[in-house]
Amino acid sequence: MKKIRLLTPGPTAIPESVLAKFAEPVIHHRTSLFETEFKVLQDHLKWLFQTKQLVLTLTCTGTGAMESTVAGLFSPGDSVIVVNGGKFGERWTKLSKTYGLNVDEILLERGTAVSLQELEARMRANPGAKAVLFQASETSTGALMPVKGIVDLCRTHGMLSVCDGITAVGILNLPMDEWGIDVLITGSQKALMLPPGLSFLALSERAWKATESSRLPKYYFDLVRERKMQEKQQTAWTPGISLIHGGVESLRLLREEGLPALFERHERLARCTRAAATALGLEFFSRSPSPVLTTVKVPESFSVEQGKQIQKIMQEKYGVIITGGQDELQGKILRLSHFGYCDVFDVMTGIGALELALADLGHPVRFGSGTGAVLTAFRET
Amino acid sequence: MKKIRLLTPGPTAIPESVLAKFAEPVIHHRTSLFETEFKVLQDHLKWLFQTKQLVLTLTCTGTGAMESTVAGLFSPGDSVIVVNGGKFGERWTKLSKTYGLNVDEILLERGTAVSLQELEARMRANPGAKAVLFQASETSTGALMPVKGIVDLCRTHGMLSVCDGITAVGILNLPMDEWGIDVLITGSQKALMLPPGLSFLALSERAWKATESSRLPKYYFDLVRERKMQEKQQTAWTPGISLIHGGVESLRLLREEGLPALFERHERLARCTRAAATALGLEFFSRSPSPVLTTVKVPESFSVEQGKQIQKIMQEKYGVIITGGQDELQGKILRLSHFGYCDVFDVMTGIGALELALADLGHPVRFGSGTGAVLTAFRET
Repeated sequence: MKKIRLLTPGPTAIPESVLAKFAEPVIHHRTSLFETEFKVLQDHLKWLFQTKQLVLTLTCTGTGAMESTVAGLFSPGDSVIVVNGGKFGERWTKLSKTYGLNVDEILLERGTAVSLQELEARMRANPGAKAVLFQASETSTGALMPVKGIVDLCRTHGMLSVCDGITAVGILNLPMDEWGIDVLITGSQKALMLPPGLSFLALSERAWKATESSRLPKYYFDLVRERKMQEKQQTAWTPGISLIHGGVESLRLLREEGLPALFERHERLARCTRAAATALGLEFFSRSPSPVLTTVKVPESFSVEQGKQIQKIMQEKYGVIITGGQDELQGKILRLSHFGYCDVFDVMTGIGALELALADLGHPVRFGSGTGAVLTAFRET
Repeated sequence: MKKIRLLTPGPTAIPESVLAKFAEPVIHHRTSLFETEFKVLQDHLKWLFQTKQLVLTLTCTGTGAMESTVAGLFSPGDSVIVVNGGKFGERWTKLSKTYGLNVDEILLERGTAVSLQELEARMRANPGAKAVLFQASETSTGALMPVKGIVDLCRTHGMLSVCDGITAVGILNLPMDEWGIDVLITGSQKALMLPPGLSFLALSERAWKATESSRLPKYYFDLVRERKMQEKQQTAWTPGISLIHGGVESLRLLREEGLPALFERHERLARCTRAAATALGLEFFSRSPSPVLTTVKVPESFSVEQGKQIQKIMQEKYGVIITGGQDELQGKILRLSHFGYCDVFDVMTGIGALELALADLGHPVRFGSGTGAVLTAFRET
């Protein structure tokens, strides 16, 4: 018997009451039944995004919502500044180039956050840039970005702030209206505790204004058309109905917990994970640690091949699925996630499986040092 | 957000694929559709009970199956020997007295197993007794009984061995036919990883023979009537259809794991729990420790009220549900279960929550000592 436990940065575990929703009948979307339910979802999403704007629901994953933003806000030849701190920052660059934008990229050392000084210097050097495209938390490296600072600079320099909050909304406090974030995006399989298949995004008045002059091609991802429909609790195309069923329940759960408790829980689980990593003698990879996930280097004595084995053993022998590094970081880092439907015992289970896997690979481990550090940190905070 | 985790001696956690069965349509039982499914269940149950006999499915919990045995095998004034090692042994006595049997009770000190010498002496003193009624594992105290020895003595002295295996079948090796157990009983909400509502029992040829002369009243619990129906893949009364759906799946899972692995897993989890209890300085309550559950005394410095608090805090603050002592053992012992849909990380979670609760009550705890002992014992075995 092997239980599978998901401790990855999306998809994340799904609460039982949400899973039960997927066993409910699929209703037709061109009905008042759907519209009534969709209105509840929209209201919950406004709460989650801390905005008065309509939060659009798209039937695609987060990358689709990123694409809808690029295609929706800009025109060929427009300049944008991209903060590239990892695989997801790189995605902003690739998307922008695909649509013929001029990309002014700030390429960060992996594991670091952008410096606001450097960003402002880049803005001064490129005053015609229309927007800054960035991640709130770069999932490939575990680096937290200074979101408020970036947004403030965008205001000052008349640029749009386009924030990929796919692994951040519902984990970090990102008050969209208060801070003046122009575009905020998230996906269903992250803090929203749903399967993959939906993404959600909201635009500020300034961002909606920008859509009016955009001349890039879009059809499925036409945000203006979606807004018109979703204002009437309808969607332009057939929506992911079961995921919307589930979303109403998962957002009800999050709302019941409340935003302050939600942010505090994630911060606390991050502290527990960091304490365990320190107790196990693992070095942090990110120099700007995120409450979303903790990245640690594999022990120095390990080869890249052995580094990959840690994750493989955790999954195949112990049923605990974590993620390692991507691309050039493969076999070099481990990414320990602690968000979504996750509590202290899930974090402890991940650390316990890590202790076992490290020992299996001959690394000296005092069993209980990591799990004990989790409990100690949990109790102290 | 609080997850609920069930580490009680029944009901136990239910696998996801079994839960999904309960979302399937209820079929009517007087159909070939039902009969086809019931045949699969019957075949799985024979495998689980290690018997060639038909294993009956009753729509009642384990106590009902115990009652059907008493009402089905005996007549007013018959003598039976009852091994009373706790709350469940006591139930055999109460049931037997309710039906007017003469009960010769071996009252054991709580936490101990019956001595075969004492049992044989009692048999010699009461040669007319028709049966010995006992538990394989007494769930109220965590004491494992010497099942094979009891059954052997029954054979020698011409008595029926009636074994309540409610928390034992699928956990301990109880080869019914090989050992010659005359009645073996289990319930759905234990090792079978189902909700409560069904019980299962099998009778040897000798036991079926005994039903022929029984003159006690029975209607719903008429085993002879049930046998006639269940031989044709039907039940005398409306069966718990959804639980049967689920049972086919849970038994498929158990069969996939295989009996040797199943017994070994439970033995291993018991060792992990015992190692953790020792590391936490907790004294064992049972002197005949069962692989089903581990009973420990609350720390000596604790009052009965504080003893009850441990369980309460684990449940209310940490969402981990364990059981304490019953009746005179309330507030004095903790019962840590490790059977059913349970793996090493579930055991570690229970121990982690126990560490936190003990610390909350001011008991000195080195965090990680218990959870570390779980991992160490797991890896060593």
